[in-house]
Amino acid sequence: MSNADGRLRVAMIGHAFMGRAHSQAWRVAPRFFDLPREPVMQVLVGRSPDRAEEAARQLGWAEAQTDWRAVLERDDVDLVDICTPGDTHAEIAVAALEAGKHVLVEKPMANTLDQAERMTQAAERAAARQVWSMVGFTYRRVPAVALAQRLVAEGRIGEVRQVRCQYLQDWLADEQAPGSWRTDKALAGSGALGDIGAHIVDLTHFITGQRVAGVSGMLDTIVAERPVAQDVPVPGLGGVAGADRAPVTVDDVAMFTGRLESGAPCVFEATRMAWGRKNAIRVEVNGSTGSLAFDFEDMNVLHLYDASAPAAEQGFTRIYVTEADHPYVAAWWPPGHGLGYEHGFVHQVVDLVTAVADGEQPRPSFADGLTVQRVLDAVERSSQDEGRYTTTGTTRPVRHTEGES
Amino acid sequence: MSNADGRLRVAMIGHAFMGRAHSQAWRVAPRFFDLPREPVMQVLVGRSPDRAEEAARQLGWAEAQTDWRAVLERDDVDLVDICTPGDTHAEIAVAALEAGKHVLVEKPMANTLDQAERMTQAAERAAARQVWSMVGFTYRRVPAVALAQRLVAEGRIGEVRQVRCQYLQDWLADEQAPGSWRTDKALAGSGALGDIGAHIVDLTHFITGQRVAGVSGMLDTIVAERPVAQDVPVPGLGGVAGADRAPVTVDDVAMFTGRLESGAPCVFEATRMAWGRKNAIRVEVNGSTGSLAFDFEDMNVLHLYDASAPAAEQGFTRIYVTEADHPYVAAWWPPGHGLGYEHGFVHQVVDLVTAVADGEQPRPSFADGLTVQRVLDAVERSSQDEGRYTTTGTTRPVRHTEGES
Amino acid sequence: MSNADGRLRVAMIGHAFMGRAHSQAWRVAPRFFDLPREPVMQVLVGRSPDRAEEAARQLGWAEAQTDWRAVLERDDVDLVDICTPGDTHAEIAVAALEAGKHVLVEKPMANTLDQAERMTQAAERAAARQVWSMVGFTYRRVPAVALAQRLVAEGRIGEVRQVRCQYLQDWLADEQAPGSWRTDKALAGSGALGDIGAHIVDLTHFITGQRVAGVSGMLDTIVAERPVAQDVPVPGLGGVAGADRAPVTVDDVAMFTGRLESGAPCVFEATRMAWGRKNAIRVEVNGSTGSLAFDFEDMNVLHLYDASAPAAEQGFTRIYVTEADHPYVAAWWPPGHGLGYEHGFVHQVVDLVTAVADGEQPRPSFADGLTVQRVLDAVERSSQDEGRYTTTGTTRPVRHTEGES
Amino acid sequence: MSNADGRLRVAMIGHAFMGRAHSQAWRVAPRFFDLPREPVMQVLVGRSPDRAEEAARQLGWAEAQTDWRAVLERDDVDLVDICTPGDTHAEIAVAALEAGKHVLVEKPMANTLDQAERMTQAAERAAARQVWSMVGFTYRRVPAVALAQRLVAEGRIGEVRQVRCQYLQDWLADEQAPGSWRTDKALAGSGALGDIGAHIVDLTHFITGQRVAGVSGMLDTIVAERPVAQDVPVPGLGGVAGADRAPVTVDDVAMFTGRLESGAPCVFEATRMAWGRKNAIRVEVNGSTGSLAFDFEDMNVLHLYDASAPAAEQGFTRIYVTEADHPYVAAWWPPGHGLGYEHGFVHQVVDLVTAVADGEQPRPSFADGLTVQRVLDAVERSSQDEGRYTTTGTTRPVRHTEGES
Repeated sequence: MSNADGRLRVAMIGHAFMGRAHSQAWRVAPRFFDLPREPVMQVLVGRSPDRAEEAARQLGWAEAQTDWRAVLERDDVDLVDICTPGDTHAEIAVAALEAGKHVLVEKPMANTLDQAERMTQAAERAAARQVWSMVGFTYRRVPAVALAQRLVAEGRIGEVRQVRCQYLQDWLADEQAPGSWRTDKALAGSGALGDIGAHIVDLTHFITGQRVAGVSGMLDTIVAERPVAQDVPVPGLGGVAGADRAPVTVDDVAMFTGRLESGAPCVFEATRMAWGRKNAIRVEVNGSTGSLAFDFEDMNVLHLYDASAPAAEQGFTRIYVTEADHPYVAAWWPPGHGLGYEHGFVHQVVDLVTAVADGEQPRPSFADGLTVQRVLDAVERSSQDEGRYTTTGTTRPVRHTEGES
Repeated sequence: MSNADGRLRVAMIGHAFMGRAHSQAWRVAPRFFDLPREPVMQVLVGRSPDRAEEAARQLGWAEAQTDWRAVLERDDVDLVDICTPGDTHAEIAVAALEAGKHVLVEKPMANTLDQAERMTQAAERAAARQVWSMVGFTYRRVPAVALAQRLVAEGRIGEVRQVRCQYLQDWLADEQAPGSWRTDKALAGSGALGDIGAHIVDLTHFITGQRVAGVSGMLDTIVAERPVAQDVPVPGLGGVAGADRAPVTVDDVAMFTGRLESGAPCVFEATRMAWGRKNAIRVEVNGSTGSLAFDFEDMNVLHLYDASAPAAEQGFTRIYVTEADHPYVAAWWPPGHGLGYEHGFVHQVVDLVTAVADGEQPRPSFADGLTVQRVLDAVERSSQDEGRYTTTGTTRPVRHTEGES
Repeated sequence: MSNADGRLRVAMIGHAFMGRAHSQAWRVAPRFFDLPREPVMQVLVGRSPDRAEEAARQLGWAEAQTDWRAVLERDDVDLVDICTPGDTHAEIAVAALEAGKHVLVEKPMANTLDQAERMTQAAERAAARQVWSMVGFTYRRVPAVALAQRLVAEGRIGEVRQVRCQYLQDWLADEQAPGSWRTDKALAGSGALGDIGAHIVDLTHFITGQRVAGVSGMLDTIVAERPVAQDVPVPGLGGVAGADRAPVTVDDVAMFTGRLESGAPCVFEATRMAWGRKNAIRVEVNGSTGSLAFDFEDMNVLHLYDASAPAAEQGFTRIYVTEADHPYVAAWWPPGHGLGYEHGFVHQVVDLVTAVADGEQPRPSFADGLTVQRVLDAVERSSQDEGRYTTTGTTRPVRHTEGES
Repeated sequence: MSNADGRLRVAMIGHAFMGRAHSQAWRVAPRFFDLPREPVMQVLVGRSPDRAEEAARQLGWAEAQTDWRAVLERDDVDLVDICTPGDTHAEIAVAALEAGKHVLVEKPMANTLDQAERMTQAAERAAARQVWSMVGFTYRRVPAVALAQRLVAEGRIGEVRQVRCQYLQDWLADEQAPGSWRTDKALAGSGALGDIGAHIVDLTHFITGQRVAGVSGMLDTIVAERPVAQDVPVPGLGGVAGADRAPVTVDDVAMFTGRLESGAPCVFEATRMAWGRKNAIRVEVNGSTGSLAFDFEDMNVLHLYDASAPAAEQGFTRIYVTEADHPYVAAWWPPGHGLGYEHGFVHQVVDLVTAVADGEQPRPSFADGLTVQRVLDAVERSSQDEGRYTTTGTTRPVRHTEGES
């Protein structure tokens, strides 16, 4: 799959919010990091020829196309970057892998467990041929999150005892905010659960190094009907309300408790209804010798509590994760000069290109993505079964403890 | 029950951590507030004559006794303040009410639902004779919490849509921290759930004006065995570890999701294992037009988000709850001069004495306390039933929504 | 001066804002701390018989008087606590010391340097007879501040290199807020400078262990005329505006740079005009191996930066100063249960009674208070001399400008 | 100066820390903003041919050159972007303007007042020919800062009454941190004052719309000698210490008070010695009806206090400046997805290209930069004159001291 001149030619499918973020990443990564292969922004694929042309020009892709299948057949494409809605991921990803293209697929990996399983099988077949795939959980690559993972892995907070994790947004808190494909179960698969709940499950897997073994879930749809958005492109998640109304067929709040493989209890919440919280991804991990806390609304900061510090000096240390010793940071600016949202996408490109060049499995793999899907699926099943504890089926049995067996 | 000279003569039973806080409240309240009756710190009751004498002297009570039953028969006691462990509450409270004494009982109201129900019945009989009772959920009386309640009641954040509520401590996070009556199910009834989970359930009831209608619970005991504490009195919650070890028979982590009467989803966590969180009572309420957030570790502050503010100026407003317009504050200091933990106990005395003098039911009543107990009981039952959603039995049916019916 | 039964009988002169705080301290200190002598709230002195009677009743003093000179002659008074406006301090304090009474005087110690010098001389004469005196800079006794002092003294942040210190209030930011004795130079001596600037100078002296050797000052009166307050007692600092208006003859903003005895540069600001800052006493000390930061609006917290920590883990540690290892805290509540404004007054009583009983000079002494007065005086003189650097006259010469070491 | 195809061809001189930031801005601006002219990264100029070639490749410039004078003669260069140390700015900028090239010059504009005046005169001559120039004070273009300016201009906090402004860093706090051109007066002109003090003076000018009319200054050099850095390029501000040592001939701490044109008092501090503060640019503005507060270490947030809000709801509102209604933000991501340090540079390119295309003077102009230089110069002169108040010479007389309104 490598080509003579060391370039990595990319085709990106989709060009909305995620397409803009991915384009920025492909453009910027080689300017700050020494990449083993030079990315080339070869072709952008969109459904509408006019919009695709315009997006390619604006986002800096060499050309625009409308037929993703045709693009898969081209020799001058090495990697396919899938930024379309979730219902199309499986079809495109499997075809791309079979065509011998590396694949980066946005999260959520797929809308159904079945799709995710097929994708994972395709990925494993491809990997045998050194064709690689990856799921786009970019929050793993926020330096403060990567530092959290490193500290846990180093044993800095001891054994993980419990996790609380929230992803709070408010872009649907206004009951007149229009619906979109994101509120339509047929297209989106689920609501807050699949869209943002997926992130906090993945972050938990990433930071703790353990998978969620079972869950007890509750879903809710607080605003059951919304105006339909007009077909006017807007940046980001919103839209312009039209006169028609349609039911919301996905959850706008998801709450669930669960257990890690070790039996450690965790509690999760994903909501689009929390006025004032814009993108509050909050992770707290309590270990046997310390704790960690992170909030994406202060994304360059990680809080570390060290229970072995002198008694009178204990407290959460606000680590401003902008030092050369911190993950990814040395490539950027001096201490104190914070990074922004899109830098996670840049780091994703760095890690992906490096893994491809090294012939190693990039992470999170499709198998990693599948474990997240299994958790989401277990939450849905539990919520339909009166909240009963439901295993995710991916892991060994968990401990049963006081009051629960 | 009123006496000629307008005094309210108090007997306090128990003199550990809570006894010290209550004593301070009885002493200080009349110095800052105009009370309709003047409290008199008449008699302190303790099991050990020596320790009771010493405590009475130190805490400022006129005399010490060891037999609470004898004290109930005295004519010179108007109110009994019960600060003993939970397993004794029901017996003392019922006897006191039957003896015609007003009662203030520390939380948790009782160790079992049965006890709480008997206490509530006794309270209702007594109320008919103008003998009043109250449960000591003092966090209701932190000015920032009282302001939150007022703002919700005034409709300032619209309809309550969801609640997240945590009570995080770390005094058992060290696995060598000794056990005590607080880790013994026979004495304490439950662990984190009953001790601190009770507070966040009560705060949810208080702030939202709604009760929790059902829950899905998970309890855990992360450290299953601890050193036994020596019989050395220490201030607060800790202890001095001895050589023996004993099993921990209560939960140290409780997580549960639930629904309010309106159907609004909520998520709760109580833990004694969260290194670095000392007394972090965190309440966030999201409404249809705004949000509120509180953390006891910054107890003089309430955060308010008003979704009707101009778009470019929206944000959480950090209300420093030290102004004369704020609940309870006018009696204290100028703006910016914050209050501390024990002020909630002072306010409790103010509200209790005022209600007794006015012949009105103080809140939270035993009936209010009982509803908290029913929630705790439902959490325990749910946790023993694989987390299945379990109703608290106190309220009308709740809405069933997407994914759940 | 000691009496047979070990009691310390107190007369308090003045009963406004400070009188209430001091009363609370005398009442509460013996209930939480083991004091070597038991304070007795013997007599309260006020100008108006009616108001004094009412205050004595409300605040818990055994009797009320109107003639402070008569009280000084009584045998049943051991200590005089002076809570009157600054223009009366010198006369009362000197007389009390000469009458053999211990003295606690509220800050500012005096309105003029001359008064402060006379008081200091009287204090030194009295000390020779074991009659003690102290100035009421209570912010020294906030546990987080006392911890800061301890850490600096232990060398925890190395050599002190620079200090920034602010005291920000807003109670005069409304230009219709009425004036009072506090805005009248004849009564108050100065405005923001003497009232709150005094505190940050004293805190700098206390925490660094060094005195301010010279200053360059700028004073301003932003609102030059205000309504006159009606003669209606209100709690705290405010008042009820009447129809008349009067000029403001004191500063409402004071800014000054300066140098410590070591030459270390510092910068100070005191203002009553900073909308939104209620009682923001902010101290930051940068040393050669670390830093400290404190803000009274989050009074139970001290931030410590340790430059010797591992590079990837450096950051300000938010020490929640509620642990038994922290100054004064063991006497109060368990970790996480914060203290409030008036606790500093309680600790002041503890330290004062202990020093008196031990026959040791309490701190801050009148001599300490005098050094603060000299700094304030130098600021005024500098501001009248175009901001020229003006020495405080208490210390050895310091370095002046860049390059002159 | 416009060319047929609407492109704007850029030559960048210098390629260290600032060159990297500027390159990112030229690259990214047209991808997120609709620019009236398309920037072309035409040529990078560096002293060493090898390093220039390598930088051009890494940073994405079409070619590399070593002779900036030759580049000024080229027809295919429209704009010169000067990222070299301050001692070279005047010569290059004047030559470029005379050659008819637009100029962007990094701050500080120049090392001496004389240089800055010559540059300003050249800029004014060029402006008459529609050749434009601008100084790179990029912090003006952080969205939260731009919002602060907008709110003040709209009268949202009333009349500006006082300003406190700090720029705190710690990259020289370690006394073994090596010196560089930045600690050499001959090359850098001044230390903390010119390097970072310049920013807070400019921010004060920008946000308040007023200039600093006079100052009282104090400079200090806390560490007077340092190791000399080896000639090893490192990212950012640091360096690798060699065996030799050299004196530090610039200030590492600058403190000054001052007055705006209106007479409003301000206080400033710039330091490189504040352990734990990495890039803490803190601005607080108090007005007659409200206040604003900003800290670059939480750069996506602006705090607004509105004194006209209901009394019980007043407080600082934490505006998370990530909404489409906020300056520059609509071009980027959805709410809650914060920006980073380099986005200010992107916005600078947007504003510069727009002004050039519109034939309007970009801001801050060289005349704006000159006013900052005059303030810095006055601080130096004041510090050499015992801190005496020294006017900046650009503005009308101001009030001086207390009571003289």
